[in-house]
Formats: sequence, C-alpha cells, structure tokens
Amino acid sequence: MTDPQTPDRDAERSANTMWGGRFAAGPDAIMEAINASIGYDRRMSAQDIRGSRAHAAMLAAQGIISPSDAEAIREGLLTVLSEIEGGDFVFSTALEDIHMNVEARLKALIGEPAGRLHTARSRNDQVATDFRLWVRDQCDAAVGGLRALIRALVAQAEAGADWVMPGFTHLQTAQPVTWGHHMMAYVEMLGRDIGRFTDARARMNECPLGAAALAGTGFPIDRHATAQALGFDRPSANSLDAVSDRDFALEFLSAAAICATHLSRLAEELVIWSSAQFRFVAMSDRWSTGSSIMPQKRNPDAAELIRAKIGRILGAAVALFTVMKGLPLAYSKDMQEDKEQVFDAADTLMLALAATTGMMSDLTVNRDRLEAAASSGFSTATDLADWLVREAGLPFRDAHHATGALVAAAEKRGLDLPDLTLVEMQAVNSAITQQVYEVLGVHNSVASRQSYGGTAPDQVRAQIARWKGVMEGWE
Amino acid sequence: MTDPQTPDRDAERSANTMWGGRFAAGPDAIMEAINASIGYDRRMSAQDIRGSRAHAAMLAAQGIISPSDAEAIREGLLTVLSEIEGGDFVFSTALEDIHMNVEARLKALIGEPAGRLHTARSRNDQVATDFRLWVRDQCDAAVGGLRALIRALVAQAEAGADWVMPGFTHLQTAQPVTWGHHMMAYVEMLGRDIGRFTDARARMNECPLGAAALAGTGFPIDRHATAQALGFDRPSANSLDAVSDRDFALEFLSAAAICATHLSRLAEELVIWSSAQFRFVAMSDRWSTGSSIMPQKRNPDAAELIRAKIGRILGAAVALFTVMKGLPLAYSKDMQEDKEQVFDAADTLMLALAATTGMMSDLTVNRDRLEAAASSGFSTATDLADWLVREAGLPFRDAHHATGALVAAAEKRGLDLPDLTLVEMQAVNSAITQQVYEVLGVHNSVASRQSYGGTAPDQVRAQIARWKGVMEGWE
Amino acid sequence: MTDPQTPDRDAERSANTMWGGRFAAGPDAIMEAINASIGYDRRMSAQDIRGSRAHAAMLAAQGIISPSDAEAIREGLLTVLSEIEGGDFVFSTALEDIHMNVEARLKALIGEPAGRLHTARSRNDQVATDFRLWVRDQCDAAVGGLRALIRALVAQAEAGADWVMPGFTHLQTAQPVTWGHHMMAYVEMLGRDIGRFTDARARMNECPLGAAALAGTGFPIDRHATAQALGFDRPSANSLDAVSDRDFALEFLSAAAICATHLSRLAEELVIWSSAQFRFVAMSDRWSTGSSIMPQKRNPDAAELIRAKIGRILGAAVALFTVMKGLPLAYSKDMQEDKEQVFDAADTLMLALAATTGMMSDLTVNRDRLEAAASSGFSTATDLADWLVREAGLPFRDAHHATGALVAAAEKRGLDLPDLTLVEMQAVNSAITQQVYEVLGVHNSVASRQSYGGTAPDQVRAQIARWKGVMEGWE
Amino acid sequence: MTDPQTPDRDAERSANTMWGGRFAAGPDAIMEAINASIGYDRRMSAQDIRGSRAHAAMLAAQGIISPSDAEAIREGLLTVLSEIEGGDFVFSTALEDIHMNVEARLKALIGEPAGRLHTARSRNDQVATDFRLWVRDQCDAAVGGLRALIRALVAQAEAGADWVMPGFTHLQTAQPVTWGHHMMAYVEMLGRDIGRFTDARARMNECPLGAAALAGTGFPIDRHATAQALGFDRPSANSLDAVSDRDFALEFLSAAAICATHLSRLAEELVIWSSAQFRFVAMSDRWSTGSSIMPQKRNPDAAELIRAKIGRILGAAVALFTVMKGLPLAYSKDMQEDKEQVFDAADTLMLALAATTGMMSDLTVNRDRLEAAASSGFSTATDLADWLVREAGLPFRDAHHATGALVAAAEKRGLDLPDLTLVEMQAVNSAITQQVYEVLGVHNSVASRQSYGGTAPDQVRAQIARWKGVMEGWE
Repeated sequence: MTDPQTPDRDAERSANTMWGGRFAAGPDAIMEAINASIGYDRRMSAQDIRGSRAHAAMLAAQGIISPSDAEAIREGLLTVLSEIEGGDFVFSTALEDIHMNVEARLKALIGEPAGRLHTARSRNDQVATDFRLWVRDQCDAAVGGLRALIRALVAQAEAGADWVMPGFTHLQTAQPVTWGHHMMAYVEMLGRDIGRFTDARARMNECPLGAAALAGTGFPIDRHATAQALGFDRPSANSLDAVSDRDFALEFLSAAAICATHLSRLAEELVIWSSAQFRFVAMSDRWSTGSSIMPQKRNPDAAELIRAKIGRILGAAVALFTVMKGLPLAYSKDMQEDKEQVFDAADTLMLALAATTGMMSDLTVNRDRLEAAASSGFSTATDLADWLVREAGLPFRDAHHATGALVAAAEKRGLDLPDLTLVEMQAVNSAITQQVYEVLGVHNSVASRQSYGGTAPDQVRAQIARWKGVMEGWE
Repeated sequence: MTDPQTPDRDAERSANTMWGGRFAAGPDAIMEAINASIGYDRRMSAQDIRGSRAHAAMLAAQGIISPSDAEAIREGLLTVLSEIEGGDFVFSTALEDIHMNVEARLKALIGEPAGRLHTARSRNDQVATDFRLWVRDQCDAAVGGLRALIRALVAQAEAGADWVMPGFTHLQTAQPVTWGHHMMAYVEMLGRDIGRFTDARARMNECPLGAAALAGTGFPIDRHATAQALGFDRPSANSLDAVSDRDFALEFLSAAAICATHLSRLAEELVIWSSAQFRFVAMSDRWSTGSSIMPQKRNPDAAELIRAKIGRILGAAVALFTVMKGLPLAYSKDMQEDKEQVFDAADTLMLALAATTGMMSDLTVNRDRLEAAASSGFSTATDLADWLVREAGLPFRDAHHATGALVAAAEKRGLDLPDLTLVEMQAVNSAITQQVYEVLGVHNSVASRQSYGGTAPDQVRAQIARWKGVMEGWE
Repeated sequence: MTDPQTPDRDAERSANTMWGGRFAAGPDAIMEAINASIGYDRRMSAQDIRGSRAHAAMLAAQGIISPSDAEAIREGLLTVLSEIEGGDFVFSTALEDIHMNVEARLKALIGEPAGRLHTARSRNDQVATDFRLWVRDQCDAAVGGLRALIRALVAQAEAGADWVMPGFTHLQTAQPVTWGHHMMAYVEMLGRDIGRFTDARARMNECPLGAAALAGTGFPIDRHATAQALGFDRPSANSLDAVSDRDFALEFLSAAAICATHLSRLAEELVIWSSAQFRFVAMSDRWSTGSSIMPQKRNPDAAELIRAKIGRILGAAVALFTVMKGLPLAYSKDMQEDKEQVFDAADTLMLALAATTGMMSDLTVNRDRLEAAASSGFSTATDLADWLVREAGLPFRDAHHATGALVAAAEKRGLDLPDLTLVEMQAVNSAITQQVYEVLGVHNSVASRQSYGGTAPDQVRAQIARWKGVMEGWE
Repeated sequence: MTDPQTPDRDAERSANTMWGGRFAAGPDAIMEAINASIGYDRRMSAQDIRGSRAHAAMLAAQGIISPSDAEAIREGLLTVLSEIEGGDFVFSTALEDIHMNVEARLKALIGEPAGRLHTARSRNDQVATDFRLWVRDQCDAAVGGLRALIRALVAQAEAGADWVMPGFTHLQTAQPVTWGHHMMAYVEMLGRDIGRFTDARARMNECPLGAAALAGTGFPIDRHATAQALGFDRPSANSLDAVSDRDFALEFLSAAAICATHLSRLAEELVIWSSAQFRFVAMSDRWSTGSSIMPQKRNPDAAELIRAKIGRILGAAVALFTVMKGLPLAYSKDMQEDKEQVFDAADTLMLALAATTGMMSDLTVNRDRLEAAASSGFSTATDLADWLVREAGLPFRDAHHATGALVAAAEKRGLDLPDLTLVEMQAVNSAITQQVYEVLGVHNSVASRQSYGGTAPDQVRAQIARWKGVMEGWE
C-alpha cells in the first residue's frame, strides 16, 4: 500500500508571504491567476454564442432535445449576447472561461434547459470551434485591411507612374526606376499576403463541433448540419485532431508575420525617405510629431511603430510554436496559451495595416528630390553599356570598357552622360550614334525598360490596370 | 571641399593579431569569409545551369544572341553540369558564388560567347530564380515525404482500427479511443501540411528571370518563354518585387515549422509510450539503442531527435524573418543569409520525415497494454452518463449523480463498471435497463462513438477508405 | 522648387470605411491607437514619480530651481502618487504616456512650478530611467520568487533525501537515484538563475537621468546625485547610449527565458509523473482539476500551464530582439514596443514561479511507486559491473560480460540480481564474493554513489546543508 | 501475455523507394544521418582529449588505474591529438561521435589500457565536459574580439572627439553631437557585452566530469582534482544537473544575440551613412564592392552582412530554447542538437566582430558633411531655449515661445540662428544678451553639454581616457 509523504508546509508559508502584494490570498489566488482565461477569452463571446445556437438547433432537429428547450436556449442565448454587447454582462473570474460564464448566465435566465445545451458537446470541441471561428474572421479582416492598403498604393502608383526615382541596391543608387513601379512592388507582396490568408482560411474551414471531449459522441448528432450553419465547408474528419491541433493558428500567425515583414520594409523606407538627407517624402502631421521650435523636424512615429510590429507578431508566432512543441494528443491545458498570442497578433496586424494605409494615403511625395537623386551618380551607365551591346553590336566587354571611359570623361568635366556631345562620345567609340541619347537621361532610361514587369511607365500602367481589374472584383 | 580623416591603423593591426589563427591573412580573409557564398550556394548548381540554359535559348529565339553562340553556351553548360555532378568541378572561393563559378568555367570552355549569356540578366534575378527553383523542388520533396509518412500511418491505422487505447487529455485517461483513430489524427495533420506546401509552391511559381538588376531591361526579351521553359506559371509582374522579396522562403519555412511541430508531437508520444511505465509500443532496434547489460532498456534515440528538430526549423524561420525585417528595396546583401537557413531547414525536415516514416513502419504495438490502460480509471463513466441521458431520459444533472454513485459502488468493491449487476445498478437508479451494458466496457464505448469523425472502428475505417482514395491519386 | 504631389484621397476614404467598427473616428483614432502608451506605461507611475522627485531635489540642490518650487513639486508629486495608488487618478489617452499624464496633473495641482520640473530633462532619459527602475525591481522580484521555490525544493529534498527513484535517461530507467538528488538538481539550476538576475541587475544599475534628449545638457546638473538618490551605482557614462540601448531589457528577458525553460522541464516531469502509468506523485486539488465521475482523474492544469509559459517568455524576447535589430542611434519610436513585452514576461515569470512553488509545496510523493520503478529493469546492473572492475579487479570487458550473463540468469528465473545466491553468481565468475551484495539492490546502489555531487543520501544531505547555509544569508 | 502487432511493411518499402536518392541504403542510412554527430562534434576533439587526459591522471593518482596504464593512455591521447591536428585522423561515421572515434583510435594504438580510461565515466559527463570547455573558450574568444573592436572604436573616437555631427532621434536631426561621442556609445554597449560573456564564463565554470551517466559513481574518484586540472573553479554539485542542463549554452547564445544586436545597429548606421544622400562615411574597398562603370557606387556588403547576422544568432538561440523546452531529466538525445547551434552562432559572432573591427579601422569619415548636416534644421534651437531659461531666467514656456519666434525670424530670412544680430534677438525678447552666442552654432552647442556623459568634447575625452585605462589592463 502506498504511503504518500510530503514535506512540511513551511516553505509554502514563506512563499505565500513572499508573493505578498501580488498574491495575497495565497495558492488559490495564484491558481486562479494562472488558470482563468475569462480575462481574454471573453473576446470570443459572439463566436461562443453563435456556436451554441447552431448546436442547440441541431440537437432539436435530431430530436435529442425538445423544440421547446431549443427555443428557450435560443432566446436565452440572444439575451446573453445582447447583454454582452450592451456592456451589461458581469464576467466572473471564478467561472474561469467564456463558456462557463455564458452557460451560468443562460441557466440563470432559462433554468433547467440550459443544462441540455451541453449534450453531446464538451468544452474541448467548443473552444476549438469558437477559436476557429475567431481566427477565420481575422483572416477576412486581414484580407479587408490588405485590400484597403493595396487601393492606397495603387492610387500612389497611378499618380506617379512616370515619376523617376533612384532604384536602390545596397541603399546605393543602381538604376532609375519609377515611383509607380516601386509602389506596385508592394502591391505584389501584399497580393500574395492576401493569398496566404485566403488559403489559410480555406484550410481551417472545418468544423470541430461534435468532436466532444476527444472521441466523438454516441448521441445521434448531425455534424454536417452544425458545420453548415456556422459557415464551415465540412466537419473535421477526426475528432482527436479536431480538439488537439492548433496548426490553423500557427498558419495565421505565420501569414501575419510575413505580411508584417512587408510592412516593416515599407516603413523603413518611409523613415529613411523622411530624413533631412533624403527628403523624398513628407509625412502628414497626422502620422508624425514635430517640434514647436525646430520647424523642419517631423518624426515619423507611425512608420517607426509599424516597423517595430513585426517583432511583436513574430514573437507571438514563436510563443505558440514553442507551446505546441512536443505536446501529446489530445487536449493539454498548455493550449490555453494560444488565444492571447493570436489576439494580440491579429490586433497588431490590423492596426499596422490601418496606419500604413493612412500614411500612404496622406503621403506627400517630393518629385523633384526623387528625380534629382535618380539622376546623380551616373545611374544610366548601364543603359549606355546595354545600348552599346544591343544597338552598336559591341561585345559586352568592349561595351563596358567604353562606358567606363565615357563616364570618366563626363565626371572629369562635371557633366552627366547626356551632356556629352556625340563627337565626344564617338571619340571614345566610333560605333556610337545619335540614337544613344534615347537611352541616356533618367526618363529615357526608365522608358526603355519595356520588359514585362519592368519599370517603364507603360509597363507600370499595365500592371496598375491589371490590379484595377482585380480590385473591381472586391465588391 | 571634403577632408576625410581616419584614425591611425594601430587598432587594426592589433585586431589582426588578435584574430590570428582564424583570420591569419588579415582583412581580406575576413571579407572573403563573410562575403563568399560558394561554400553553400553550390547546392543550387543544377538550378543555376537550368536557368542559364533557358535564358540562352530565349536570347537566341529573340535574336539577341546568335544561334551558334546559344549552341556553344548550351553545350558548355551541359559540360559544366556533368563536371559538377561527377565531382570534377573545382569550386573557387575567390569567385564568391555559384553564378560566377559556373560563368568562369563556361568561359574557359567556350570562350567569348560565355560573356553573352549575361546579356539582359543580372546576378540579382539569377539568384532569385535559382533559389526559387530550389525551394520549389523542396516543396515537392516535402509533399513526397509527407505522402510516404501518411502511407505508413494509414497502414498502422488499418492494422489497428479497432484496437482500444486510452484517449488522453492532460496525459490522463479521459475516454477510450482506437489506435486507428489516433493514427488517423496525424494523417489529418499531415494532410494539411501537404496543403500548405502545395499552396506555397503555387504562390511562389512566378519567374523572376528578366527582372535584371531590379528595373527590367531594354533588351527585347521574352519573359513568358523563360518562365514556361522553367516550369513557372508566369513571369513575376514587378521586377523590383522579383529581386527583393523572399516571402516564398519565409512561407516554406513556416510550413516546415508547422509540419515539424506535428512530428514533434508524435515523437513525444513515442518517447512516453516507450517508457517502462507505459510500454504501449516498442521501437525496433533500428531506431533505438540498447544496453548490453540492461535487456529492457531501449532508448528511443530517433524519436528524441525528431522531437528536437522543430527547434532547428523554427530557429531557421526566426533567422530569416529577422534578416528581412526592415530591409529597404530592392536587393540588399543581407538577403544572402536566406539560403543556409532554408537549406538546413529543408534537409532537417526531410530527415525527420524519413525517420518518422521508418519508425512508424517498424513500430511494435502492445495491444494488451493499450487495452488494459484504456480500461482502468472508469474510463467509460461518461458513456454511462450519456446513456442515462440519451436512453433513460434522465436530466444531465441526475445522470451525472447516478454515474458518480455507480462508480463509487464499483470502486468500493474493486470492480469496473461492467462488472456491476443490473440489480446493483437499478438500486442506484431504477431507469437503468439491460441495454446499458451495450455502452459499458471499452469496446462498447468506442463502438458507440458513431458521430462523424468519431473513434468508432466503423468511422475510422471510413476515413481510412477516404484516404486510400486520396492516395490512389498519388501516382 | 519642390512641387509635392499626392494622389487623391479616395483610397483613404474607402480605408476609413473599411476599418469601420474598429477605427470609426478615422486616422486620428488609428494614430492614437498605435501611438499612445498610457494603456500600459501607467505601470511605471511609481518609478516615474520617484525619478521626478530625485530630479527636482537635485535641481534645487544645484540652484537650478528655487527651494520653494522644489518643495511644491515634491508635494505635488506625492499627491499625484497617492491619487494613482488610491485609484483616483484619471489617465488620459490624449496625453499619450505616463510622463505627460503625471506632468499635466502636477500642473493642475501646483501651477507654474510644474513646468520647471522638466528643466535639463527630456522624455527620452525620463522613460529610460523609469523603465530601468522597473526592470531592476523585477530582477529583485525574480530573485525573491526563485528563493521561495528553492526553499520548497530543499524541503522536498530533505524529506526524501534517501527515497529511491529511477534515474532516467531517454525516459528509460538508467540507474537508481534519490528523490532528494533529483530535487536538488533543480535547486542548482535555479541557483544559477538567481545568479543571472543578479548579474543583470548589477550591469543595468547605471542611471540614464541627465542624458536629456540624447546629448546631455548645459545645465549644471549633478548626475551622481540623482543616480545615488535612485539607488543606482553610477550615472551612465554616455548620454547617447543611455537613451538608445535596451540591452538591459534583452538581458532580463533572456534570463527569464532560461529560468522558464527550467520550470518547463520540472512541469513536464510533473505531468508525466502524474499519469496513471507513472503515479509517482499526486498533485493537490489546488493545482489540478478532477472529474466528478472519474475519481482517479486529476488533470495537472497548473503544471501544464507552467510548461507552456516558456513559449510566452521566449516570444517576448524574440519580439524585442527583432524590434532592436538594426535601429540607428539614438532614440527611435520603435523602442516603445519594449515595455509590453517585458511587462508580460515579468508577470508570466512571477506567476510561473509562484505556481511552481505552490505545487512543489503541496506535492504528494508516492514513495512505493518510486522505489518499485527504480528496482525494475535490472537498474543496478552497472553497479555490478563496476563492482567487478573495482573490487574483483576484472578488466572492463570481462566485467561487462559477466554482468550480462548474471542478468540473463536472473531474468530467466524471473528474479532480480540481489535474489541470486552467491553460488549462482560464482558459477558465472569465481571472483565474486559476498561483498557484491553491498552494491546490489537499489538502496545499496544509491548509497554507493559517494562521488562529490553523487546521488548517495550522504552526498545529497551535504548539498542540502550547503544550500541551507546559503539560505540563511537570505534575510 | 503481450501480443505485439505490426502492420505489413509495404509502407516502409514505398518510403524507402521514395527517399531514393537521398537515403538509398534505407533505414540504416536514415538512422545514421539523424543520429551521428561526428560530422560536427569533431570540433571538440581538443577538448575531448584534454578531458580524457585529466581523467586518466586522476584515476592513476587515486589508484584506480595503474601508473603504467595512465602513462600509456597519456601518450596515446597525445598521439591521437597530433593526428587530428595534423589532419591525418580518419573520422568514422559508424563510430557516431568524437568520443568513440578517439577511444577506438586509442585502443588501436595502445590496446587494453584504452578500455580503462572509461572507468568511472560515461559519455554523458564526457560530452557535458567537452562542450562546456568549448563554450568557455568561446567566451574568451568573444571577449578578445570585443576588445579589438573597442580599440578600433576608441581610436575613431579619439580622432574625432570634437567633430560635430547630427544627433538623430527618429532619424531626424535633434541636436548636434560629436563623432567621438557617437563612437563611445558603442564602446559602452560593447563593454557591457564583455561583462555578459565574463559573467557567463564564471557561471558555467563548474566541471561535470565525474557525474558519470547521471548518478555519480562508486569509484573513489577525486572530482576536485579533475576540475582543477581543466581550469574549472569547482566540480558541479549535482550529478543529475551536470549531465542534463544546457543553460550555459543558452546564456552564451543570449549574450551573443545581444552583442549581435549592437553590431546590427552600427551596421545599419554605416549603410545609411554610406548612401549618396548621407555621404557621412566611405567604406574602404576591402569591405565594399563597386561598379566599374558607376564610380560613386560603393556597396557596403560587409556592413549589410553584419546587420544580418543577428538573425542567424537569434535563430540559433530560439532553436536551442525550443529543444530544451519541457525535457525531463536527465539526459535526452534531443540535447545533441545543442552543438551545431552554438558552433554556428559562435563562428558567426567572431566573424561579425572581426569584420566590424576591420570596417571601423578602415573607415573614412567625411567631417564636412557631418558638420554641415549638424548645422541644418535649427539644430541648436533647444540650446537657445535652454539658455533663455538658464541665463536669462525666463520661465520655460516663455523661453520656448521666444525661441520659436527667433527661429521663424531666421527662417524667413534664410539665416541660421547665430546669424541674427543681437538687436534682432532683443526685438523678440529683451532679456537676451551677447552671451547667447556662446551656445549658438553647433560647436558652441556641443561644447556646452558638459553634464557627465554629455557630448562636450571634454566629456568625451574624459571617457576615452577612462577606457584607455581599462584597456591597459588587457594585457
């Protein structure tokens, strides 16, 4: 026979004293603090009630509960929902989570039938359903936010389809590009972000309800009916999987982190472009803060905060991956950590999308600075070399050599390449003709980049037109 | 006029001394060590040559280079490829990367035409194309590995569709489930993993070639032709985006991390199940190590290593997210860090999939231990309570109360629930009939869980059949 | 002259509509949501007021403000503090952060002198000081929490210094160890955690106050005086560094993550040990949840949640590392993201420490199960082999061979090693003497592991005594 | 009786076919690939042999092995070491790890005594010792690398202690600072990095050798002797902890990640400062790449790569944290994943430190551009406001108002503040005197920031002097 043994409780007592301020009430307060989720899972109250309504309707349709019970439950749940939405609901930490808070209130409202709502259901499939509905809504919201930002960027691109700016590599001017082209690069990225959220949504759109605790149920439930009522494509095909995996949350977090990476890159550009040294753009007052005594100082606060948000979202993803690592099936309490990470990441992403959309809509672009910057540094030297290959038939090596000589000649005289006369050019290589000027100068340079997806204004406008067609499909 | 100033070089000298052993040759050795990528990007040699061949063929078709040059390039590249595949190629660190190594060798082989290969192309779009081809191949490989593992798990599920085992929550027995059901839970997870790699592949399947350095090109290239030749769905629509985003790599890493999370969970179960206390399964000698003097000790080395691999893959994902955070467009050298992370994560994932497939194929399952464990702890008490609600029409609260009383009665006498007589049961609640025995006992319990996706052997077999249909579609 | 251009505002309008519910008030609401920190930095109100009091006192001592202004400020700040502590303070989001909230209230209370408080100070050094004070407090709190847990573990170790249990490798029984030894392993780990927090505290204990915006100030301030008044070891030696680095927060998060890793390991053990298959320990009801109808089910909720917390803390660390990556000096708004991560990680760590302390104090240990498990599987075979080398002088290979033969002999007869007679043993190897029984059996085995730090009860008690000496130094 | 069952092997066969190219040899090749560590742990060969020599000497001193055996082992190990160092050693994957490779070679060299080396030792304490020695060496190397970089930065600071440059907040000019001050900010950060590595080294400096498999040993070993011989401060006090914790590796990775964060910030500044728009600095050709036809383009490759390295190191830290999460004591095979992460992070850190040191030693600073940038944007407006408070006794609000008016007056006329006459100033506020000019202009501004740690050249030089004193203590 077992003879259990425990050390004396001195250690516990001193521990309790130690936590003093924070957990004055001792172990029970600590357990409540670590265990209760109502502080955050109340955000799923609409989803919880929606799921319960679908479940109750199905139970009645299957003859598992009576129509009158189902009607009492339905009306009671609507009352609870309106109390929550109206701010009149009193959440109780002692009742731990949203499910028990709703159920207790329902019981107070309608009495005995409330207990029947939990027939053929468990908190495990209930929370899996609620959370999936919540994340699914966030996929839709993210797509909405991305569409708004794409609209703002396409508007920027359209306004500046032919504004010339430096195309950077290594933050060094490499070749001239157009503002519209640069804006549309982000449109492409964000378009793929929409694809990721759309794919994630489709993949997660299976209904866990009816998985019960983990094994399914012996009640003659109709899982296809509840799945359909809740807008799912189908019920999940394995009840163990339904209550124990959270890959849909991990996929949402991953998609959000990729999207936030894109936003961080645009934000970094805005911070650099706003500097006194660049002055490519000016943020509106709405998205920046100034100094009452330094009139030219305008701190790009919003852009900096957006740049930082990838940290927060990546952190949330790492947190949930770490939580899920090595968890045996089926439900483990560890999984309760899933919600706060996803809630925070989703809020953060929506805020970053909204702020970026606002900033890009308000942005003042300094065309002259862009063009001047694009024109410096012999940024069309590669155009010249390409022309020598393409039109004058020079081998690549000779073309390169001639270009270097022409740049040196121009530099010595403080000129740019288009400022050299044809005679001066022909002195370097006699194959050069008047046509060379068609690719020199930044406007000619960008106009010549006619390859598909290139920076030529025509190409940029073609892509804008394509996206406008896509946008028309967005109600 | 500028007056540049630098401090004296004492600090540098002492630094050089300091690095001594490691970077004896001074700054040049350090720069080479940090800058050169040939040590790892040689893994993309097949992709690099494939891309170059498509590019050369297109250049010739467009009349940009001559047919004879194109033929020389084609033959030269095939020679280089066979040298590399044959292990005869001498890679040079001084030539920094795979692109320049191939190009230099091509020049040695065919002379001047080699230079023309680089017409209308840049290392920026070249590396973006190579890497995309490589990652695309890895998506296919991951799908292949996942399919093999699914086959192994379905085989396990089929063998044990009706073997009873404990269904755990919190690692406590909650309800009996079937071995087949448990195996199929992982099949569902891995099926979604296939979906993620498939979606990622489709999204990344746009060809960067022709984006040139960043702006496109003035040469009359045909990007649709090269895209098609390389198996891409289309050319990428924005040249800046094409050379500067790596979201396809981030998406691959995210999908790999989710998949590795699933594998870590199965591995943890195998480690626990292999313990002397559980003895649910026995690993074959292939995947474990023993002790010559402790015959019962069998260390589940492979399972432990698989469990650990999520760390490595998640680390790779975090690394690349951090690298990409806040990078301005277009190409920055930081991006050179993308490849090693993806290479290592891809290798790790394939190895973990292969080892898991091997382990699951070799696994010896201890049916008796599973069933005995499932039967302990009154694991069918919920079945009894559900029966009282469903068949005897008791309110949930009364059913629960009666169940508690019956369990207590059985426990007091050292019996399990099915061992109680009908008379004993009716003493607790007179509504109980002979039919109750149909849900008591673990076999009856699992058989009764007939809800869609539930643990009843019929349901499990239905899902196996569904998956076998899917598997038939896998060549 | 510049000719700024912006696209029309249609995109913005549609964006605003889109955010609808969430940001109904348009851009201003979005900016406020992303920019304001008062929602969380109010947690630093005590630190903020403490810093301001020290600053005001120093300004007066240096003759920069008048004694009467200093006195008004001091009294006003005390009033603000008592309002905050009493819950009477109305925080304003429009005032953005804790600094401006306090300052505005101070101005309302004492009028003009409030403005003088900001002499020779900026929000940059103010927030750096507040946050450093807060993190420093958390180092102390973490040390306190760790000490309490160490006390609980030492009490467990003392109670069970000679209780035998299996020592696991790969979750397979390797050799018998003692419960006390296992508990003291965690004491060592947590002792190093204390060291990390102590070192971090010492390193961060430099006062940023007086760094002003970033360059220092021309006012004749006394930074040593404010540093001393706030308990810092010295003022920070470079004002740019003082306002722009957050390595102290990163170090705190790293130390917290390492500590949480330790806690996750202990929690995993408790979850496994609580399973029906192990039954090594039983959690008290306080830290677990049961089932009203399954009497043996006790879900180790607290242990599971503690196991998960490393995810949350590691996520916070990753978040802040990502935020700080690549930020140019000095202050950037990105850094505002530092606080929520640290607040959440600190709270999480304290909660996990408190719950672990509670669990370990309440834990019921099942000695019989531990000993039975330790005795199975020929766990003392290595003791026998070692004895043959050490006492009988056999070469290692021969000793190993004889051990294998003896184990096989015992196994065939269903006996354990100590059950073999001397005659039976000598039949395998004649060098064996009666003394061999002194190392066979788990009690003999552990008693023989007398190497420093080994599992012998004497050794364990020696380490307990050493730690009790250390603990005496903890007030 | 148990009746083990396995599904048929079809799945396995198809899996083997599937892995085809990669794991042609089937399961054994897969197991070898996932299990063997010799591919990387050979890097610990010197540590392994050093530990074995200390162990053998101790065994002999304690009389556990004979002096002649000890001598044979010593000489044999020296031979093995020289073979490895000379590149003549043939590592065998079949022998799995460095320990078995060395041992097998030793046996081939000296025969039977080789077997006695493993007395009172296990691979568990052996690898823990080797790895700890390796990480300890890396702490020393990191300190050495940091010292070299500090020397380079102090040299930069000394050269430019009074060069004026813009002090940025939000990448906007806030106040003028000095180049020396900016350099010394990094010296402070790196100084704390040294502290972290030093503390980590001290904490990890306990010797695991003698912990044996996990429980200690019955042999009369002297753990203090081996600890001393290997330069450890003491033997570890708990054998379970000694073989199962890796917190020293986590702490090393955390310190490395913080250090790499600092380097990423400096690297970002160098990238931005090298842009055509800033032109604050010019990298030497050694650390950058140029364009043969664009003479002004100089890509800061090394700086970009250094900026990226934090990703790699943070990824390694996340990887090991994830691996260690929730591992039960004592040794689990998962821990084998510790080494590659630490090896890669350590190499990466050393390379980044070396490259940064080289870059900073070679850097050409453009004083004129720095000063011109510092002088724009009314960067001394706060100096004027402070002067009005400090010297003219104006309330802060009035001082601010007057400053705004003076800036507006100057701006309207295209002047900077020092260009206004005293009369013009007094027209705004009559309290202004000739002394005001002492703080106007960037040189006066920085000279006035005399607070401790401020940007005044005197203050900067004082800190340089302090650091030079510290540096003298570095042999």
